[in-house]
Amino acid sequence: MGDVAMTPEKATDPRYAAFAGARVLITGGLGFIGATLARRLVALGSDVLLVDSLIPEYGGNLFNITDIADRLTVNISDIRDMYGLRHLLHGREYLFNLAGQTSHLDSMTDPLVDLEINCRAQLTLLEACRAVNPGINIVFASTRQIYGRPDYVPVDEKHILRPVDVNGVNKMAGEAYHTLYHDVYGMRSCALRLTNTYGPRMRIKDARQTFVGVWLRSVIEGRDFEVWGGEQLRDFTYVEDAADAFLLAAVTPEMAGKACNIGGHRAISLRALAETLVAVNGGGGFLTREFPAERKRIDIGDYYAEDAMFRQLTGWTPQTDLASGLAQSLAFFRTHLSHYL
Amino acid sequence: MGDVAMTPEKATDPRYAAFAGARVLITGGLGFIGATLARRLVALGSDVLLVDSLIPEYGGNLFNITDIADRLTVNISDIRDMYGLRHLLHGREYLFNLAGQTSHLDSMTDPLVDLEINCRAQLTLLEACRAVNPGINIVFASTRQIYGRPDYVPVDEKHILRPVDVNGVNKMAGEAYHTLYHDVYGMRSCALRLTNTYGPRMRIKDARQTFVGVWLRSVIEGRDFEVWGGEQLRDFTYVEDAADAFLLAAVTPEMAGKACNIGGHRAISLRALAETLVAVNGGGGFLTREFPAERKRIDIGDYYAEDAMFRQLTGWTPQTDLASGLAQSLAFFRTHLSHYL
Repeated sequence: MGDVAMTPEKATDPRYAAFAGARVLITGGLGFIGATLARRLVALGSDVLLVDSLIPEYGGNLFNITDIADRLTVNISDIRDMYGLRHLLHGREYLFNLAGQTSHLDSMTDPLVDLEINCRAQLTLLEACRAVNPGINIVFASTRQIYGRPDYVPVDEKHILRPVDVNGVNKMAGEAYHTLYHDVYGMRSCALRLTNTYGPRMRIKDARQTFVGVWLRSVIEGRDFEVWGGEQLRDFTYVEDAADAFLLAAVTPEMAGKACNIGGHRAISLRALAETLVAVNGGGGFLTREFPAERKRIDIGDYYAEDAMFRQLTGWTPQTDLASGLAQSLAFFRTHLSHYL
Repeated sequence: MGDVAMTPEKATDPRYAAFAGARVLITGGLGFIGATLARRLVALGSDVLLVDSLIPEYGGNLFNITDIADRLTVNISDIRDMYGLRHLLHGREYLFNLAGQTSHLDSMTDPLVDLEINCRAQLTLLEACRAVNPGINIVFASTRQIYGRPDYVPVDEKHILRPVDVNGVNKMAGEAYHTLYHDVYGMRSCALRLTNTYGPRMRIKDARQTFVGVWLRSVIEGRDFEVWGGEQLRDFTYVEDAADAFLLAAVTPEMAGKACNIGGHRAISLRALAETLVAVNGGGGFLTREFPAERKRIDIGDYYAEDAMFRQLTGWTPQTDLASGLAQSLAFFRTHLSHYL
């Protein structure tokens, strides 16, 4: 797990100079993207505080930071705990706000829990920032899910929002609070609408983050995986590229108040993704299946992002192509599989 | 207050035949629009149950139905009380869901209360319907506020939603739950995005519903009223026309799953509205003032609705022009002023 060091170019990227010595709070910091971001910030010399609830169904996993545990601080708590948050926010310069319930199906079976985490806790967190630390620089992890079934692709930020599940509605509100607190109170807050993010440390024990985790696990375990449908086009962001997006969003003043799409290299069909995964792995197989009825009701068809706004504002470009990202993911999970099952 | 009778044409409008004997629940039923709708439904022969919390800052007022109290049922309770709601929903065929926190400023000073009422209680109500009465026919009172500052006017339903206050964010989520429960569960639910609704029984003691209430009260009490800005264009719906919109939405199967704008006769500047009010009243005056800073942050500039979708789907057309509506409002409040202060 020696990837804290990063490539020399990234470690000395002058755009990231602001993070040396910076006091950073990451909610959902033990999760897939949160921990990847934490590892990058530790390498950049930040004073990193992670908040995570370690709710079993969500993404938090202490193994994600075990090897750097002495270089950051972990506070196990729930963002629904508003009093704790007020204390933890004191003196922090950056807040990467990644805590959330991400499962679409869970949001339909327990919609009020999803609301508590993705709406109420977000509003509470922003109120806490406003009260104790209004100058904090906030980047919120939003999702393409808020668009629902696209009217057109690629989807740009002018596309109407019509979420197809309770999770999408609540994430839409959670994002809107973040941009609103900029517009009304002048707080420096922005949101990134993430698409399918994949890579080392993702949740692979079930499909609560994306189906890609389940595919990776199946390939490593030598089992066929299932492709539902197959023709749908999607885009994928490698997690290190997603981490770059968060870092660049935080140091780009023009991002304040914006909600921007984050995409990947190019759109690809699920079938082609499956074929790429099998090829990169050097073996394996998959079955193509009709959509199960309960998934079809909330499936969105083709989606891929137009992320030109974010690229122009921040200079971000994804560095890792799909074959390379899948290869790094497979290598990571082959070595550390037991910690993710 | 003999307007239960309606005009003979409306009482016998064949489109409203479905309401004869129908079991109807109205949340927010003691409020301005809710009570107007209740009066219409009583006249149409419905079995009407009103639920209202009578929270003093909100719109409920028992005087709104005193003269017809023996022709309907009133249940004083809060829609945040989920157990009560499940009982009250049993056997109801129609749900006009008008309960809400409507004050933009209150939503900024107490955002979590606004969230509890406009998000959490709405989701709870839909879950209750799904559990005990999934066949109920639901019309939700949404608001133009969810659009925020328009990119163009007239605003149609393709316009992106970018609310400028917490109330707008929460109403956006509340509306989205309603259309979502149609899309996912096949429930018959739709939403009307109301603009400024005015008329007899509106809240005039403060500006928590619209500024028009305060203007009406000032004119009746012989005081000048204040016009903030003056050039902004807005549209206005007379409350009986709004009631027609709810009734027609409920009996139009094609409305299921839709969220439609409701407008008025035509857009008018606030200054022209003020002049019309003074003219209709036969006297009075107003002062034009710069916007106070705390209002300007959440003001939206010009807004008027493109409501062609709703008109085409339902055949709705507003019947009452502004001068006539203001005249009827003034006549009502001159007679009943003490009950609204």
